[in-house]
Amino acid sequence: MGAVTMLTADELRARLQAVGEAKYHHRHPFHERMHRGELTRGQLQAWALNRYYYQSRIPIKDALVLAKSDDPAFRRAWRKRIVDHDGDESGYGGVEKWIQLAEAAGVPREDTIAYKGVLPAVIFSVDAYLSLVRDSSLLVAVASSLTELFSRQLISLRMDRMKLHYPYLEPGLAYFVGRLTQAPEDAAFALDYVTKHARNREEQEQVIRALERKCEILWAQLDAIEHAYVVPGLPPPGCFLPKGEA
Amino acid sequence: MGAVTMLTADELRARLQAVGEAKYHHRHPFHERMHRGELTRGQLQAWALNRYYYQSRIPIKDALVLAKSDDPAFRRAWRKRIVDHDGDESGYGGVEKWIQLAEAAGVPREDTIAYKGVLPAVIFSVDAYLSLVRDSSLLVAVASSLTELFSRQLISLRMDRMKLHYPYLEPGLAYFVGRLTQAPEDAAFALDYVTKHARNREEQEQVIRALERKCEILWAQLDAIEHAYVVPGLPPPGCFLPKGEA
Repeated sequence: MGAVTMLTADELRARLQAVGEAKYHHRHPFHERMHRGELTRGQLQAWALNRYYYQSRIPIKDALVLAKSDDPAFRRAWRKRIVDHDGDESGYGGVEKWIQLAEAAGVPREDTIAYKGVLPAVIFSVDAYLSLVRDSSLLVAVASSLTELFSRQLISLRMDRMKLHYPYLEPGLAYFVGRLTQAPEDAAFALDYVTKHARNREEQEQVIRALERKCEILWAQLDAIEHAYVVPGLPPPGCFLPKGEA
Repeated sequence: MGAVTMLTADELRARLQAVGEAKYHHRHPFHERMHRGELTRGQLQAWALNRYYYQSRIPIKDALVLAKSDDPAFRRAWRKRIVDHDGDESGYGGVEKWIQLAEAAGVPREDTIAYKGVLPAVIFSVDAYLSLVRDSSLLVAVASSLTELFSRQLISLRMDRMKLHYPYLEPGLAYFVGRLTQAPEDAAFALDYVTKHARNREEQEQVIRALERKCEILWAQLDAIEHAYVVPGLPPPGCFLPKGEA
């Protein structure tokens, strides 16, 4: 590349924004179908059940991030995420709220918790996120959370459309209500962190690449769900089959 | 499960056989389309290019297996696989042969070697194979290779059908010729190994589970390719787009 200069904070932000516009899963056809009201209850069950595997790994991912930092102030800030997902003593956090969303769709709690019939391709994608975080620098691990820069808008739209098209989901929407405030706070912290801690252009490019990879991980989950449950075809042998289609 | 007795060698073999019949990718719709002659040249390009990522990881996987064994005799036997894929000094082994298959389909060698436009979902699935091998016992690592029990029949059928339906691939079939003899030898060794080294029923079940997981890994690769290139839809942002469809 020859001599490369560092991006300014604004330039880095613009690059990250461009990644989100091109690769974040707000553009995925499965979400577009969801928002148009075209998904059956069985398809929403498959989505909620499979996505639970992702939700269930988030606090584990955040614990891996914590374990990378030797700065108590960073760890104090970051552990908020674990609390958000695991809840306080009552256990009412993001993981539990997602179980309730799946219940509202019609997936029994015990099936969700047991990951019953979850697509292997979803497991492989989510596990790739854990590997990325575990095997990378703290900078890259933090950067991989930057998809939250884009989630508020998606969640806000999703809630509106769910109430409109799938009213039976309404008792399960608490997860999204929480994320509307949590995600932007988390994103602002992570963006500030990578802006301050990427020390040269190469590290800035690592940050951008981490966000791209995370977008790919989210996208691959929806591809797998769409392939198994929406487009012509069948889920792989042994995976979830919707019962009682609406 | 209460008191569980060990499976006999024949019973273990039958259980493994049943996994293959239910979950091996000879049943995948993408292969069925391939064998019926229904794939376009662009779709075969996408398959060859994406599958190259898997091929390229095989000797790395086998090196991880080698590193788990403290038995020189085992390592001498297993290293044959690395030689088969990496070749001798001339470099003409399975990896090179696959590059030539992709070339015959129309993917330039440099694109294949660079993994240009490979689907993230394929990368995540294949990397799950490496993680499985790296993070498991030697027994499980060996067991995950048992898909080779089923590959001779699939490869034999595939070669016939490729010559019939896609004659332009004929200059690229050397990989399959080699595997016709290599895979059964390798499978016999691995089957003998797991039969002798699974010391109790729990370890026998681990062997069966490892084969299931490996089948899921192979299946997920074809699902990703089929979703991006065969059924309605588009590959994820930035992935390979076939040019010059036949």
